Amino acid sequence: MAESGFTQMAGARAQGAAPEVGVGMLGYAFMGKAHSHALKTLPYMLYPPPAVPKLVAICGRDAAATAEAARRYGYESYTTDWHKLLENDRVQLFDNGGPNGLHAEPCIEAARAGKHLLCEKPLANTGAEAKAMLDAATKAGVKHQAGFNYRFVPAIRQAYELIQSGKLGRIYHFRASYLQEWIMPHYNAPMMWRLQKKTAGSGAVGDLGAHIIDLGRFLVGEYRSVSAMTRTFVTERPLNGQPVKVDVDDAFAAVVEFENGAMGTVEASRFAAGHKNSNCLEVNGEKGSLRFNLERLNELEVFWVGEAPKETQGYHNVLISESYHPFWSNWWPHGHMIGWEHTFTHEFAHLLDCIVNDKPVAPLAATFEDGYRTAVICDAILESAATRRQVDIRY
Amino acid sequence: MAESGFTQMAGARAQGAAPEVGVGMLGYAFMGKAHSHALKTLPYMLYPPPAVPKLVAICGRDAAATAEAARRYGYESYTTDWHKLLENDRVQLFDNGGPNGLHAEPCIEAARAGKHLLCEKPLANTGAEAKAMLDAATKAGVKHQAGFNYRFVPAIRQAYELIQSGKLGRIYHFRASYLQEWIMPHYNAPMMWRLQKKTAGSGAVGDLGAHIIDLGRFLVGEYRSVSAMTRTFVTERPLNGQPVKVDVDDAFAAVVEFENGAMGTVEASRFAAGHKNSNCLEVNGEKGSLRFNLERLNELEVFWVGEAPKETQGYHNVLISESYHPFWSNWWPHGHMIGWEHTFTHEFAHLLDCIVNDKPVAPLAATFEDGYRTAVICDAILESAATRRQVDIRY
Amino acid sequence: MAESGFTQMAGARAQGAAPEVGVGMLGYAFMGKAHSHALKTLPYMLYPPPAVPKLVAICGRDAAATAEAARRYGYESYTTDWHKLLENDRVQLFDNGGPNGLHAEPCIEAARAGKHLLCEKPLANTGAEAKAMLDAATKAGVKHQAGFNYRFVPAIRQAYELIQSGKLGRIYHFRASYLQEWIMPHYNAPMMWRLQKKTAGSGAVGDLGAHIIDLGRFLVGEYRSVSAMTRTFVTERPLNGQPVKVDVDDAFAAVVEFENGAMGTVEASRFAAGHKNSNCLEVNGEKGSLRFNLERLNELEVFWVGEAPKETQGYHNVLISESYHPFWSNWWPHGHMIGWEHTFTHEFAHLLDCIVNDKPVAPLAATFEDGYRTAVICDAILESAATRRQVDIRY
Amino acid sequence: MAESGFTQMAGARAQGAAPEVGVGMLGYAFMGKAHSHALKTLPYMLYPPPAVPKLVAICGRDAAATAEAARRYGYESYTTDWHKLLENDRVQLFDNGGPNGLHAEPCIEAARAGKHLLCEKPLANTGAEAKAMLDAATKAGVKHQAGFNYRFVPAIRQAYELIQSGKLGRIYHFRASYLQEWIMPHYNAPMMWRLQKKTAGSGAVGDLGAHIIDLGRFLVGEYRSVSAMTRTFVTERPLNGQPVKVDVDDAFAAVVEFENGAMGTVEASRFAAGHKNSNCLEVNGEKGSLRFNLERLNELEVFWVGEAPKETQGYHNVLISESYHPFWSNWWPHGHMIGWEHTFTHEFAHLLDCIVNDKPVAPLAATFEDGYRTAVICDAILESAATRRQVDIRY
Repeated sequence: MAESGFTQMAGARAQGAAPEVGVGMLGYAFMGKAHSHALKTLPYMLYPPPAVPKLVAICGRDAAATAEAARRYGYESYTTDWHKLLENDRVQLFDNGGPNGLHAEPCIEAARAGKHLLCEKPLANTGAEAKAMLDAATKAGVKHQAGFNYRFVPAIRQAYELIQSGKLGRIYHFRASYLQEWIMPHYNAPMMWRLQKKTAGSGAVGDLGAHIIDLGRFLVGEYRSVSAMTRTFVTERPLNGQPVKVDVDDAFAAVVEFENGAMGTVEASRFAAGHKNSNCLEVNGEKGSLRFNLERLNELEVFWVGEAPKETQGYHNVLISESYHPFWSNWWPHGHMIGWEHTFTHEFAHLLDCIVNDKPVAPLAATFEDGYRTAVICDAILESAATRRQVDIRY
Repeated sequence: MAESGFTQMAGARAQGAAPEVGVGMLGYAFMGKAHSHALKTLPYMLYPPPAVPKLVAICGRDAAATAEAARRYGYESYTTDWHKLLENDRVQLFDNGGPNGLHAEPCIEAARAGKHLLCEKPLANTGAEAKAMLDAATKAGVKHQAGFNYRFVPAIRQAYELIQSGKLGRIYHFRASYLQEWIMPHYNAPMMWRLQKKTAGSGAVGDLGAHIIDLGRFLVGEYRSVSAMTRTFVTERPLNGQPVKVDVDDAFAAVVEFENGAMGTVEASRFAAGHKNSNCLEVNGEKGSLRFNLERLNELEVFWVGEAPKETQGYHNVLISESYHPFWSNWWPHGHMIGWEHTFTHEFAHLLDCIVNDKPVAPLAATFEDGYRTAVICDAILESAATRRQVDIRY
Repeated sequence: MAESGFTQMAGARAQGAAPEVGVGMLGYAFMGKAHSHALKTLPYMLYPPPAVPKLVAICGRDAAATAEAARRYGYESYTTDWHKLLENDRVQLFDNGGPNGLHAEPCIEAARAGKHLLCEKPLANTGAEAKAMLDAATKAGVKHQAGFNYRFVPAIRQAYELIQSGKLGRIYHFRASYLQEWIMPHYNAPMMWRLQKKTAGSGAVGDLGAHIIDLGRFLVGEYRSVSAMTRTFVTERPLNGQPVKVDVDDAFAAVVEFENGAMGTVEASRFAAGHKNSNCLEVNGEKGSLRFNLERLNELEVFWVGEAPKETQGYHNVLISESYHPFWSNWWPHGHMIGWEHTFTHEFAHLLDCIVNDKPVAPLAATFEDGYRTAVICDAILESAATRRQVDIRY
Repeated sequence: MAESGFTQMAGARAQGAAPEVGVGMLGYAFMGKAHSHALKTLPYMLYPPPAVPKLVAICGRDAAATAEAARRYGYESYTTDWHKLLENDRVQLFDNGGPNGLHAEPCIEAARAGKHLLCEKPLANTGAEAKAMLDAATKAGVKHQAGFNYRFVPAIRQAYELIQSGKLGRIYHFRASYLQEWIMPHYNAPMMWRLQKKTAGSGAVGDLGAHIIDLGRFLVGEYRSVSAMTRTFVTERPLNGQPVKVDVDDAFAAVVEFENGAMGTVEASRFAAGHKNSNCLEVNGEKGSLRFNLERLNELEVFWVGEAPKETQGYHNVLISESYHPFWSNWWPHGHMIGWEHTFTHEFAHLLDCIVNDKPVAPLAATFEDGYRTAVICDAILESAATRRQVDIRY
């Protein structure tokens, strides 16, 4: 492997024992794996860490699978009853990576039990549900963070910094689409919790749309109104051999306006052939433009108006991997790309820092307030599609 | 220069004198130049040509400039009064490349005079105006074609053929954006006819939107409804030193649905920094996807669901330049790219063929019927933005 | 079509009759078509033209096909005997677009007859042959240009200007490859003149290599030495049903050094699956880098060392289509791409200007001196491959 | 975060305790960090792991920094004397991530002590040195692996499988370049061990070239001969305020031939502005082509000759992230990209599997035999550059 730079060993920077924060994890599947990986990696990769997470307990519905997950990731114990996580004094941070329908009640109870909170996105199935979660967290005075991990992609953070610094000037356009393909007919996907309203709240809106709606708020600002349509292309799917109605959207598209006058489009689909995990966004401003695609997450395209020499103006393809790029002082020499999984590493480091040093979670990470606002916008998208009217956003 | 293939000389294919068609051209600026180039090039490049256009006369408001254009392109005569073109018996085809506000009346008069018609897009400033043009052309029984030249990009025609053949299966999504930047603040653009409603009808909607709305109809089918927003970012511009109000849109965005159930987004802007002439579209179907960008007009990206071997499934970047690709048997060996200007060459060859051989202009080219329908959709977009409601398309 | 800029009509710039230059064309196939197109287009597209070419006569071996070509392109006459072109007083410019083996003698005779010369590349089959051509042209005092048309791609000219101005600083690397695929086994190509030494001189070396060797000289400077290998992958091909030995290279690769200390690689192949006409080059300098690919001929990628802000350093993808880019004031608004064929339009305009205004052909175009030097380098590549030694370049 | 697929939890697949393998690590800087990360991650990410590495001890020259690294990564102990690692009975695998000059002696001693071996690349400073290491490892009967981690990029493994299966047919071309920029003048890099022959053996040749030479052997086969040039652009660099001569190459370029008749180019530079870690390779075969770029390590471009329908033939951009792609069943749903660091995770998992299950390290990983052969080729490149002759490869 080629050593191509001047990575200063973080080890030279710091000494001393970091405090420990006990974590109770709900969920052992996709998010359980991603979160556990981040929690285990951050103490030595983001070094010195603000705190060292202790994997106290993990909870899931299937006892054998949960036990196996505990063994795999090194949780000290496991349970099939999430209340047990809250009763455990050693758990300081309740990490909710369960299905959407299991976000509200456990988080509210955890807040009441004084646990700090990380909850996966979408925060809740509806704005009302999210509001209850926010209120509980606020009342309890705990730290609360919503799992909008794409704020922790280095290229997205860099985009945020460029926009915040005023380098793009007035923002004219925001354009975001989150396209996947995994429930298209050729995959023969059965009915699952993500395809039913009672368990998932919505389809592409909450699962994919929430991510890019949050990025719109993060990068551009508050939404003023939305006009949307939704589609359900496959209306029945088999469950145990019986056809069951799909009552959520397979796709949605919305035109949006922001309070600062910018206009945009926000779209998501699970029926976009060839798109595996294509979360693309673009921001056009008075002084420049930015483009990002999650499938090439270490790159950011940037255009500067008026750059000299004019003969070579054009979109820059920036490899976000320099030591001065966000988060990168922790990683490798430039050009040695990092993966999607480390968005969680950065996300947890931020929350642990806020917990042990009593820092504000916002604006760099999404709080439950942000999760609530995104839920309200999701509700407005569904309402607009149903009523065929432009809907104002009211929190 | 490298000879890399087996281009068969078209010259070996054909003999015989092609009929002549006299052309009267209105406009000598951008479109006058593009049309004249195509008319002069097609007889020997698209060989043997269906007909040989004769450049009978050109018309413009500025006598000196029009005279110069006539000299430059080889028109036999020039005039500053477009009625003169219609009185000229040698003019069989009236080619209207004038500003939008000069589309309706001259075309209607030309139809009455029995001239075949090519009119630049947008066909008219409103649906009503376009309808009058369509009615006049229909009544006169002349051939009528609207200048949606992007139907004549080889890659777009290839996309059309793939979709028509059923290779994409059911269509789920259409996604089109036409982004430019040329009236952004740093260009200091003054007031001009394109920025006033009385002369241009609308802003980005008619100028850029019309193109991609037509491509949506060409590739996917009829629109059922639209929900839109518009924006005017710079509201006054100087004219002779005085600020004048801009009363057209600088940008619009719409979500749309098609009669076949597909959903889409259609967006255009003149405020997208870094986008010079970025007309991008994507179609997602049940069996595959297509992507196109006018700035790379000889390329088409294609994804096929279920392609073997599965290990190498992915978007194909297809160089549309093989002799079996649309229009390419007329051009160069593969990989020797052609330019934007030849969309007009193909477009005129089609119309001349329809004229001399009495073939139908539709569906490969847009007729005044298509131009009218696009105008209706443009009207609906403006209405939706004004009323904040989803608007059904009614012709 | 969208009018997106401020293209000033060249027609406003100039008046007056341009002088005429009579052209006698040898060859009616690929190059005959490309040259004729350029000669016919330039008077009104590169306006006002330095001179108006008159298509006096065309020459080819097949009488019927040549007659047809004359009719198609508008040559006043045709012949099957190239001497006739030289005897024609109205021919001032002898345009040699014939096969390689027919470059030397006709050009030498044309020079003796006092004709100005354009000869397609490679100038000759060997350095010695090229030297004789150069000497004849020099002695005759005529203008002489070698058909290295890629010097007339706007993006290449822009690259040249950036390097000449010193903006890249000291040059470290040149990296060029010209890859095609048209004689790979699946095409079942028969024996043809391009695959035999007596008619073509060499294979990929002279056909493709000559182009990029010339671009190396144009952009970086004189070569000092080369080390090369060649390959012939298919050693026999059928001719009239009989297998005939292929005695030229299908591909070559060379490492090269320049007199200014830069090092490079130059490679060409007709066996690179998927590459249609992929002429890619890159220059790395002390202060920046440039990249180009002929399959996207309107783009240039540029990297600037030390550009601010450092957070967005990266390769710029520059759309070479602004009115201030080379040749573009003659064409369309930015983003409306032009084709490969216009390299010839620019090339002829340059030569005509040199002829009627007695300007030097070099350094912007390649002269026979440049053609000769490239031929010497091609010889050195073949010698290096045969002797397995690094070969110094000596003119 | 969006759950987009059907990742089956590896946890469901397996049970049972994996054996432990004690590791002694030499080096705590760049490679020490990368290796430690991999060793810590693999037991739960590549689940169930073939073995669980135990971090027994780490060794470095600076006691304080080594102690800190031990604390950071969780090594049980540390030392400044590498002999101590060999004396430790709990160390079964000696992991040499030290500078090049510290590869041979410690590895030879470790082999004698019966330790299994992983040694970073280049294996040694010369072929002779590498041969001694190979002989020692062979004699000791231990497992030996050279750190050519790019064999463990999923896309590279996929390329290997496609070529091995015969899907590309006969191979015509291999084209590899490894370009970086980190010692260009604007970085003001001082003299360091990598820039001196006594410590690094060579410059770009051994550091970068070794990687791509190995990939050529892995993908295409044995080299037959090389013709090369080298360059040192900056000949002195400061060390403690004094100028010191740079006696290694800053860049090299070579044309190569393989025993199977393929021809190629291999090039590396530390002076290629804009290239951060650009390890690009291409293979052209009779039936298809492959392209790879380490800066987009989760992508593979593939072209298939004769693919149907012919209208959409073109390079596929394949996102290597499906569960059926190499290594990916361990990771995330498709489109959720992994980073460069996991090449080491895969590499260690392979070696541990070979150790505990007595499997052969070759051909999927490079052995010391492979490391030796690459060293011989590096020697040949330097010899060819010095003698200006093509040099045959003899092991």
